[in-house]
Amino acid sequence: MKKMFLPLILAAVSQPVLADEGMWTLDNFPTAAVKEKYGVDISDGWLETVKSSVARMDSGCSASFVSASGLVLTNHHCALSCIAQNSSADSDLEADGFLAARPEDEVSCPTDRLSVLVATEEVTAVVNRATAEMADKEAGEMRRRTVKRLVQDCEDASGLKCESVSLYQGGQYWLYKYRRYDDIRLVFSPESDIAAFGGDPDNFNFPRWCLDMSILRVYENDKPAATPNYLRWRTEGLKPGEPMFVAGRPGRTQRLLTVSDLKFLRDTTIPHWLLRNVELRGRYIQYAQTSDEARRTVQASLQGVENGIKVQRKRLDALHNDALFAHKLAEENQLKAVVASNPKLAAGVGSAWDDIERANASYLEFRDDYYFIEVGAAFYGKLFNYARSLIRVVAERDKPNEDRLKPYTEAALPRTKQLTLADRPIYPELETLQLSFSLDKMREFLGPDSNFVREILNTKSPSTLAAELVSGTRLADSEVRAELWNADWATIQASDDPMIRLALALDERARALRRRFEDEVEAPSDRAYEKIANARFAIQGTTAYPDATFTLRISYGAHEGWNEKGTYVRPWTTVSELFPRVTGTDPFRLPASWRDAANSLDGNSKFNFVGTTDIIGGNSGSPAIDRDGKLVGLIFDGNIHAISGSYWFDSALNRTVAVHPEIMIESLREIYGADAVLEEMGIE
Amino acid sequence: MKKMFLPLILAAVSQPVLADEGMWTLDNFPTAAVKEKYGVDISDGWLETVKSSVARMDSGCSASFVSASGLVLTNHHCALSCIAQNSSADSDLEADGFLAARPEDEVSCPTDRLSVLVATEEVTAVVNRATAEMADKEAGEMRRRTVKRLVQDCEDASGLKCESVSLYQGGQYWLYKYRRYDDIRLVFSPESDIAAFGGDPDNFNFPRWCLDMSILRVYENDKPAATPNYLRWRTEGLKPGEPMFVAGRPGRTQRLLTVSDLKFLRDTTIPHWLLRNVELRGRYIQYAQTSDEARRTVQASLQGVENGIKVQRKRLDALHNDALFAHKLAEENQLKAVVASNPKLAAGVGSAWDDIERANASYLEFRDDYYFIEVGAAFYGKLFNYARSLIRVVAERDKPNEDRLKPYTEAALPRTKQLTLADRPIYPELETLQLSFSLDKMREFLGPDSNFVREILNTKSPSTLAAELVSGTRLADSEVRAELWNADWATIQASDDPMIRLALALDERARALRRRFEDEVEAPSDRAYEKIANARFAIQGTTAYPDATFTLRISYGAHEGWNEKGTYVRPWTTVSELFPRVTGTDPFRLPASWRDAANSLDGNSKFNFVGTTDIIGGNSGSPAIDRDGKLVGLIFDGNIHAISGSYWFDSALNRTVAVHPEIMIESLREIYGADAVLEEMGIE
Repeated sequence: MKKMFLPLILAAVSQPVLADEGMWTLDNFPTAAVKEKYGVDISDGWLETVKSSVARMDSGCSASFVSASGLVLTNHHCALSCIAQNSSADSDLEADGFLAARPEDEVSCPTDRLSVLVATEEVTAVVNRATAEMADKEAGEMRRRTVKRLVQDCEDASGLKCESVSLYQGGQYWLYKYRRYDDIRLVFSPESDIAAFGGDPDNFNFPRWCLDMSILRVYENDKPAATPNYLRWRTEGLKPGEPMFVAGRPGRTQRLLTVSDLKFLRDTTIPHWLLRNVELRGRYIQYAQTSDEARRTVQASLQGVENGIKVQRKRLDALHNDALFAHKLAEENQLKAVVASNPKLAAGVGSAWDDIERANASYLEFRDDYYFIEVGAAFYGKLFNYARSLIRVVAERDKPNEDRLKPYTEAALPRTKQLTLADRPIYPELETLQLSFSLDKMREFLGPDSNFVREILNTKSPSTLAAELVSGTRLADSEVRAELWNADWATIQASDDPMIRLALALDERARALRRRFEDEVEAPSDRAYEKIANARFAIQGTTAYPDATFTLRISYGAHEGWNEKGTYVRPWTTVSELFPRVTGTDPFRLPASWRDAANSLDGNSKFNFVGTTDIIGGNSGSPAIDRDGKLVGLIFDGNIHAISGSYWFDSALNRTVAVHPEIMIESLREIYGADAVLEEMGIE
Repeated sequence: MKKMFLPLILAAVSQPVLADEGMWTLDNFPTAAVKEKYGVDISDGWLETVKSSVARMDSGCSASFVSASGLVLTNHHCALSCIAQNSSADSDLEADGFLAARPEDEVSCPTDRLSVLVATEEVTAVVNRATAEMADKEAGEMRRRTVKRLVQDCEDASGLKCESVSLYQGGQYWLYKYRRYDDIRLVFSPESDIAAFGGDPDNFNFPRWCLDMSILRVYENDKPAATPNYLRWRTEGLKPGEPMFVAGRPGRTQRLLTVSDLKFLRDTTIPHWLLRNVELRGRYIQYAQTSDEARRTVQASLQGVENGIKVQRKRLDALHNDALFAHKLAEENQLKAVVASNPKLAAGVGSAWDDIERANASYLEFRDDYYFIEVGAAFYGKLFNYARSLIRVVAERDKPNEDRLKPYTEAALPRTKQLTLADRPIYPELETLQLSFSLDKMREFLGPDSNFVREILNTKSPSTLAAELVSGTRLADSEVRAELWNADWATIQASDDPMIRLALALDERARALRRRFEDEVEAPSDRAYEKIANARFAIQGTTAYPDATFTLRISYGAHEGWNEKGTYVRPWTTVSELFPRVTGTDPFRLPASWRDAANSLDGNSKFNFVGTTDIIGGNSGSPAIDRDGKLVGLIFDGNIHAISGSYWFDSALNRTVAVHPEIMIESLREIYGADAVLEEMGIE
């Protein structure tokens, strides 16, 4: 079986251009290939317009400007934390939807932030010079310091917000320079019953009927921001077969990982993640049944974990595809053979592949400790995160910038502050559930006889300790957090807040584990990937695209369906097909506004559609754009085959799923009466 | 790494005798090896005594007779279903323990049954003659029919209860003839806080302090049964290093599986099982927090699922041990090479290994359907099981014996009847949780668009449907079940009980899936294993032992500790070491009786101990026996390394964990005042 499939797969991935494969950076967009396949000329102007109209939601999504006064189009699920933060038992925006009647009714999204890319600058040579000739561990340390320095210098010099980006798994280092908006407000969101119609069962499926949209607005100085570069709607959307582009921030792909790292994902990382989160899902679902308020407050957490479970399950399936694995191995062996045949390349690469395997083996020895103690898997919930951020910001902020942990460097501090101090609701029961669960997992994985576990739990059960910590801490109060944020180290150390005391008690060990991870895993692995990337560049140049890094990328393809086990899936759905799917019970239930409007909607209006563009998580909220730079859809999902896009792109099956402009506009007009919004977006 | 480990592993498993490896049948016990290693002569008389004193609990455990009047020693966790069935909110035997003051106070265990092996008879030649020259599918069918006929003939001829057993993965067929006891009563059980001290965190760990014992009694004609063959106590237990034997019913090992089947376990069966049951654990734990009654009623289910999770997680770890996998592959390749070099063997084996791989590939195509619909994973809970048994017994019982599904053949019917009609408590909330959960998983795995899912759920959510079915059915009433058991097919078909209607509605499809499984998976796989086993016999004879089959086996070894990461683990614990481990909160809390007795117990009394004997799940409740056939302990667990015993035996690490006679006797005397029981067992 393996051998039979191999040539086909090699063929499929060795022609990325024909396969619509790739999430391309703007400086390396394959215009020639697009021209050849689709007959479309992508101009620099087109690329520039896209760059300035498309934004990143720093919480992990994409978005685009759709008016000159700061209106932003993204998914409902991308605005979910904002929607939840503005909801209460009396006013449930998630269930009931929201439309600001006037600009002054737009409500604040306290933890959201938008970044628009202004410029990029390659700094590979600087980073490589700084770390040349050093041993892995020292090189790792120096690389981190150098990058922090470059970022700070960039901010000082440009007045923009800078971030470092490593492309091609360490083959290139870049500075990305952003304009940043941190006053974001909610303008419109539909009811979750229609935004996420079909819920978890339909997630990653197509055909589909989700109005997964929301509209935000960016503000500057308490006024709607001026956003002269924005996307204009093409209200009828794409014709079948027409070329389609997606611009956004795909989060992470792992197509350049070594076989050893893929194996680590398959056998360790993903199974562990799944076992933890599937149990947490069980606890959430059961908790949701205890009261209406429990159901409401756990909803966002449950939705997040269910989405993750579906993704990780399908990734695991992909990695268990023996043909894929055999292909990856063959590809790696081919690269190794080319390297081995060239003494210069061989000298440069050295033992890189073995180094990565060794790094994984060392990691296995302390992975559980690192994961539970430093990554914080033992103390899941907002309250412990607050405590840790507070003690660390105070400990770090007086150090030289380059010595600090990354979230506390000058460039990163504003976001850390926003996430730590934003006033948002804390639900003690839910926090207790999460903390109790994670303490229980800590005991399960580190063992009841671990010194750390004994010290943390002492004679208490996980649930007793969790309840005590959550009821004892005052960190749910944003004013208390603000006070501690500004406190000095002596005040922090003298705090009697039990969550602060917990974070303090374990911080030294946590930091030691981070250091061990950086020295024994990250440093040798980063160095090895850098060597492999350099060999790849020497052989292939940059005809390939880098793995996704939550930075601006453009994908291209066409509005086309696919064959699912012999049956052609038409690439769009219509309004009239929605109603037979309604059962009346969650998650196949319509909100009242839609039931009322059933007869006034045009049954032929297109609802959701698919295209062959290469996307991944983080692309949620990306605009679909046509050859003229017009907005022709709103990406919100992939089909089930798109999940394996983490590791490879299968052009025959992998599809982007988007909301069609027709249903967005029609529902804004007919159901929500959002005429002002439509007008502002230049629609009739 | 792989290559470095390989020779060591090969060495370890190619010398089973020196490694104390093996769960041996009585007809093939390696007396010479035991004599050589331990200088002990195991006589036929010793084996015979063991055979007649050791029993199988048909629910999945082992046990032994310890008095002439039917007293039976087994684990607390083996009697847990009996204990739970006799508990209520007012009288919680699990929490409070139980001691029958007089024989007439002993309480019935409605779903338990004990079987004592009387004789065995090999029938390999008969089975093989019947299936010779047939294609796989017909051979599979004929094998099932032949075995059913042989079992029935055996019962008719012997007056005993007969079961068929396939040893060496189909290399041998046997009839096992039993004396059966189906009136079992509970005499004594300690409080669960001491029986399962340390709970799930300590499960499969050592050092350990569990009084995991219970005492039952078998009755005949409402009188204590005469059991003249029973084990006498050696109250001081074994000396360190002394040889030790375990006699019991190890459930299942998979040491003879092909690499293809191990891979299927690793990549499919175990991950799927884990993901399902870990989520269920989350729901149970959260449900337990809703009330004391919820906590009490879910306890046994939670304990069962947690034990399973620990086992399956460690099995998965074992299968992810690349060195083990490489070894298994090398071993299989070696066998293949020997076969290939011998034309006669090669002709006999044919394409057996490929056949198994193909069977697995076909299975993958309908595994989810089979698992959810026929195995019943979509309808988890007692009530659906009742419904299915009732409709099937009525449908099957008028067919000729050989045409029936196995649970409805004459030989199996009494047990099916006992399990279906026994009067035991049903907890509607728990049943609703289980059914709702499993309907939800059905929708997740078969997909919301599956015709089956649409038909079952219609427009209902899993929780709505589950609540309706559980509240609507009358099958919780054992009298209603008894009526339906005796009903005719027309009455069953006319039933308006919703659970019966559900079982009826899907039965045809469920049976078709079973048939497909038997024809496309089981038949070719059984035939292939038979061919491989025959090749193995031709090469090795029966110097190896068969995989465990929940039938009588004896293991041998010594009372010895092991080295855990460089530290020697002493092979026993004492009473005085228990108290510092007590935290006062579940699961590290003592019952009042033990807190009161803290000062009157001898601190030096031995509590739990370990030995090198080869055991597996199903051995729970087995006696540890010394060279003279005396009772020297009660097996209740393995250490964490014992779990990988499913696939191989690592003599350096794998240990049996047992309750020491000293703590059993001392607690019966000092804490529970069970003087009559002690006297009956011949102690002082």
